[in-house]
Order: sequence, then structure tokens, then C-alpha cells
Amino acid sequence: MNFHTRKWVKPEDLNPNGTLFGGSLLKWIDEEAAIYAICQLDNKRVVTKYMSEINFLSSATLGDIIEMGIIATQFGTTSLTLFCEVRNKITRHSILTIDKIVFVNIDEEFNPVPHGKTKITYSADRFKD
Amino acid sequence: MNFHTRKWVKPEDLNPNGTLFGGSLLKWIDEEAAIYAICQLDNKRVVTKYMSEINFLSSATLGDIIEMGIIATQFGTTSLTLFCEVRNKITRHSILTIDKIVFVNIDEEFNPVPHGKTKITYSADRFKD
Amino acid sequence: MNFHTRKWVKPEDLNPNGTLFGGSLLKWIDEEAAIYAICQLDNKRVVTKYMSEINFLSSATLGDIIEMGIIATQFGTTSLTLFCEVRNKITRHSILTIDKIVFVNIDEEFNPVPHGKTKITYSADRFKD
Amino acid sequence: MNFHTRKWVKPEDLNPNGTLFGGSLLKWIDEEAAIYAICQLDNKRVVTKYMSEINFLSSATLGDIIEMGIIATQFGTTSLTLFCEVRNKITRHSILTIDKIVFVNIDEEFNPVPHGKTKITYSADRFKD
Amino acid sequence: MNFHTRKWVKPEDLNPNGTLFGGSLLKWIDEEAAIYAICQLDNKRVVTKYMSEINFLSSATLGDIIEMGIIATQFGTTSLTLFCEVRNKITRHSILTIDKIVFVNIDEEFNPVPHGKTKITYSADRFKD
Amino acid sequence: MNFHTRKWVKPEDLNPNGTLFGGSLLKWIDEEAAIYAICQLDNKRVVTKYMSEINFLSSATLGDIIEMGIIATQFGTTSLTLFCEVRNKITRHSILTIDKIVFVNIDEEFNPVPHGKTKITYSADRFKD
Repeated sequence: MNFHTRKWVKPEDLNPNGTLFGGSLLKWIDEEAAIYAICQLDNKRVVTKYMSEINFLSSATLGDIIEMGIIATQFGTTSLTLFCEVRNKITRHSILTIDKIVFVNIDEEFNPVPHGKTKITYSADRFKD
Repeated sequence: MNFHTRKWVKPEDLNPNGTLFGGSLLKWIDEEAAIYAICQLDNKRVVTKYMSEINFLSSATLGDIIEMGIIATQFGTTSLTLFCEVRNKITRHSILTIDKIVFVNIDEEFNPVPHGKTKITYSADRFKD
Repeated sequence: MNFHTRKWVKPEDLNPNGTLFGGSLLKWIDEEAAIYAICQLDNKRVVTKYMSEINFLSSATLGDIIEMGIIATQFGTTSLTLFCEVRNKITRHSILTIDKIVFVNIDEEFNPVPHGKTKITYSADRFKD
Repeated sequence: MNFHTRKWVKPEDLNPNGTLFGGSLLKWIDEEAAIYAICQLDNKRVVTKYMSEINFLSSATLGDIIEMGIIATQFGTTSLTLFCEVRNKITRHSILTIDKIVFVNIDEEFNPVPHGKTKITYSADRFKD
Repeated sequence: MNFHTRKWVKPEDLNPNGTLFGGSLLKWIDEEAAIYAICQLDNKRVVTKYMSEINFLSSATLGDIIEMGIIATQFGTTSLTLFCEVRNKITRHSILTIDKIVFVNIDEEFNPVPHGKTKITYSADRFKD
Repeated sequence: MNFHTRKWVKPEDLNPNGTLFGGSLLKWIDEEAAIYAICQLDNKRVVTKYMSEINFLSSATLGDIIEMGIIATQFGTTSLTLFCEVRNKITRHSILTIDKIVFVNIDEEFNPVPHGKTKITYSADRFKD
């Protein structure tokens, strides 16, 4: 799994206790997962359909750098299932993992349509140019 | 279950497909659940520990009004488990439900501490003054 | 009057003196009042026309939970007048009140149109399902 | 009266009807007025205490440029009263006026303290360097 | 050069080190420069094409008031070149200067079109009404 | 050069012409560059000191995915110079490049201090675990 998008935890991302607001983190994850799905399915029209349980293993504080890793784990006819891990970029401590985030490939009328993909086509060597 | 906080879906809340961005919705839910936990546990120091699976049943579009309902379902020694439903306020169509959102009651050093609560004390009649 | 929407005062809501930024509070109130007006008038097209004077009675600080109460006080032909109170949810201290917030019911061309309502139809028992 | 701060109405500032969200406008005004008060009173610790009634005369749409004018109208012992007008910068149509926005000069403990000012000292020629 | 738009540095504008986040400052500058270009060219369709080097001379901290000054320095056929300075409003210490920000006048299809302007027409006396 | 952080262009990122607001893009770049500098210098206290000229080669629209690439090009005693490219992730069209973004390594009192680094230590294989 590759880790791409990073975030620098700024004051605007904190909850009143001074740690990273969980809701901000979930918002970042949803965007990163959608980007991954769009690239894999080669379709800008995807919607989040399902997330499996989320364990908040550790938190982050002001100035921490976190990074998000996503990988496709299953290709359905109209769906794509992803695995996600968020961790501290420096210490590599895991912040949370989500086993399954399911996106559905849709058409202009928001109906599910087959995406025709069966494996990861947008691979890690992508980083080398 | 009572539905309290409402949101008016504005352009800033949309994903590029023109529907409510799932990440924004998750951020709203996390704040609303934290507020409920703080009120029930009578402690401002609570952290989100766990969320069970999330089914995105339907979406929302520009101008929709959504509302969030939360209710406590289980009181642990240091934890509190909540049930959450988000729905369209006008049509009452369910947008998503989350069976379990678990908060932990913490002290100044972010250690779990017993909260001493065993049942809902901040009840619905709260609305009547 | 019922209090619905709550906010958890986060770092992003503070002014440089460390108290709740008045402008953020006014933004929250305008959204909550618009939501109330839309539900009462059963029309998504409403615009804020007038606010009576605002007394900032007390402030709020990081981690406070505030709640907003709105109630309809007068039904004009094309307008709706609301009363608003914002208070600290825990202490119930009033933060501010606004005697009159007037919304106008408009059509697609932004012209005022009669809304046909004469009393509160979307009542408090609304919370009970 | 001088008009200083301008805003370019962007998608993030719109309500679902496609016009400038009143709440965003109120947030901008409160910041601009606070800045004016800080400069006049030569004290960073000021709080909004009161706003007189607000008439929303016209609205603004995507891409409009609006500008805000503020001027001090009365110096109390611990307070400062401002007049505010917001208008479209190109057409000069008035969007709203607020007759009185009152700020109070406070100390570190948030108590009102005399500011010692009796007239506008930070004048228009300020623009000429 | 006139200084118009001001900003009050709030917690949401800080980087994790507690000083003004450079990225927020650049965002403010781009908006202010676009507003200036739109007014001078009398066309809402302008795009940022080029910025010359930026020296961050000093920073700002929580509660500081900064102001931005822009002036047109060159009129091309389809372009407009601006000079920008940002400074602390109270101390007048320069925070940064940008020698050239170039905007291009475009049509509905995003093609450059002549703007027909050759000198500053929207002058400083603009402030006097 | 590796491309890490991606962004999905959402309505909140657009200027009134419907293309990516340049100021938002600059804000994203500054955060990504700061993250890179912090990782390379192994110090959370870094400040942006200088940016060389910026050519906006092309823009982006709603729903586009963009990615940012950063690489260290020069290690000074207290400074670090980076090269930056932003491009459309799907088409790989360049959106802009910045030849030099200079960060300075600072101590608690915001004074420049030697960072002791002379080459890239946090290399591309970093992605492989």
C-alpha cells in the first residue's frame, strides 16, 4: 500500500481538547478514498456507499503530520472496495484503519453502472515519472 | 430518539457531483455525537473511540435540510455507546444510520476514567423550557 | 420554544481573544433561522429581510456547547417573523436574543409571494418519532 | 466614510438559492467592525456588545464585489459606536446598513476599561502613504 | 498606493507554530488582486497568470491586523500587471511584497481578449463618497 | 520527483468563474511544501521564506483531481530549497511549477538554526512499507 496525501494538523483541525478532531479526519479520508476510486475506475462519478467499522487507535496533535494509505481490495461489477490506513508520518504509529470503504460507479442519473475493471491498474510505479 | 441539530446543505457542502459530500456529513455527525456524549457524561473531555459500520442509504442535494438524531444505548464504566440516524427533515427519508458510536470519558492526561453514569439523565423534557 | 441545533465551540470559531467570534455566531443563527423558516413555510426559497437589534449578553469559550432556539411569532402575507435565543446548553445562561428575524417567501425570480400560512404547523411534537 | 475591505463573492459564500448567504455577510461585517474598533481604540481587546437593527436592502450574487464602510459615530467611556454600510462596489447599490455596532474596550480579565479616546484619530489620510 | 482590505489574524489562520500560515496569506492576496483587476478592467472574467518572486519579510501573529495594498503598474493588450504589498496595519512593518501579479482579461470561452484600458481609471478619490 | 498529496476540486475551491481559485491552490502548495521540509529537516519548526516566480500554465475545474510533487534541490546551512510541480493527476498536464520554495529551519524563538542536513534522507522507497 502506498501513502499519498498528507496533512499538517493545524489549529483549525483541532477539537476543543486540543487533539485532532475525529470529524476532520473522516472528511479527509472520504476525499482521499474518492480520489483513489475515481482513478481506479476511470470515472469521476462515484459515491461512497459503505464504511466498515472504525477504530480510533491513537490521535494526533497540533503540528503532527499524518498520511493516508488506500488500496483496492475487491472489484465488484459496479462497486469497488478499498482498505484504508491513516498513520503518523514520522512515528508511523497507526491512527486508524478502515477495512472496507465501498464506492459505487454511477452514471449521470446516479444509477449504478458496471465499471469493467477487475484489478488495480493504476499502480505504484505511477510515482516514478 | 430526538432529532436536534439541523443543517442546510449549501454549495460548500457538495462534492463535485453536486450531492452532499459524505465527508462533510461524517464531520457533522462526529460533532453532534460528541455534544451528546459531553452532556450525558457531564464532562467536556470525551474522545471518539469507535464507530460501527456506516450504510449510506440515500444522499442529499443543494438546499435540503437534514437533521441528526442521537440516543445513548449503553453505559460502560468509562465509555458511552450511542446510536445515530441522519435523515432528511422534510421527507424523513433516512440518509444513514450508525449503530454504535463509542465515546470514552477521559481525564486531563487523556486517560480513561469512570464517568459514574448508568442511564440517560439529560432527557427529552429538556426541550420544554 | 424548542432548542434544536447545537454547536461545540472549536478553535476555528474563536476570535483572537479566545472567545467565540461574534461573526461565527451570527452565521450559525442565520442558518438555523432559515431552516426554521423553510420548514414553516414549506418553501426552500426564503431570504433574510430584517433582524432587530442584537444584545450580546455573554460570550462562550473553547469547548462550550451552545444551543439555538427559534420560534415563529408573526405570520405576514409573504413574510414570517421569528424570535431567537442562543444560550449555553449546560448553564442555560443566555448568550443573546434577537426579537425579530424576518424572512420573506420568494418565487423563482426572487419576488415575494404569499405563503398561505397563518400559524405554526410544524410543532414541538415533531421530536417524538 | 471610507470603504476598505472588499470581498469577491465565491461559491463558498452562497446560500442554496444562489445568492450571498446572509450569515457570511454578517461574519464579514463583524470582523471588519472589530478591526476598525481595534485601530481606533488602540487596543486589541475589544468585544462586540450590540448591533442595532439590520435591513437587508438587496443581495449579491456569484462574482459580485462588495465593499464595507465603517465609521465611528460616538465615543463612550469604555465603548465605541460604529456605523456600517455594505454595498456593491461596482454599482454602489446599498446591500445593508447598520446604524450602531457597539464595541467595548476590555482588559485581560474581560472587564470594561476606559479607552481614553474622544474622537476619530486614525483618519482617512491614513491611505496616502 | 492605497491599502484596502484588512484581515484580523484568527486561530483558523495560524500554522502549527502559532504564526500566520503563509498559505492563508497567499489566498487573501490572490482574492484582493483579482478584485483590483476586475475593477480596473471592468470585467468579471479575469484569471491569475503569473506571480513574480515572493519574499516573506516578516510574519504576523494571533490578533494582528494586516492590510493589503495593490496598484496597477502596467497595462498590456489583454493583461494587467499589479504590484502588491502586505503589511501590519498598526506597525506598518512590511510582511511581503510581490513586484508583479499578472492577470489576463478573458471571454466566456476563457480566451484572452483585449481590455481596452491603458491607465488607472478607478482612482484613489474613489474613497471619498 | 514523487507526487503525493492529491486534491479533488470541490465547489468550495472554485472562483466565481467556475475554475480552481488560484489562492486555494497556493494554500495547498504551501502546506505540502511545509510538510516536505519538516520531514527532510526532521524539525517541526520551519517557516516559508521565499517563493520564486509562479507561472499558472493551465487551470482545473470542478471534479478534477490534482496532485502536487515536491523535491529538495538545495541544502543551505539553515535553509532548504524545494522545487514544486502541480499537475492534473489524470491527464498529467502541468498546472504550475515553482522553481524555488525556500524554508528556514528555526528554533523556539523563531531564530534560524543550522539543520545539519546535506542531502535527501527521506527517500522514495519510503513508500514501500
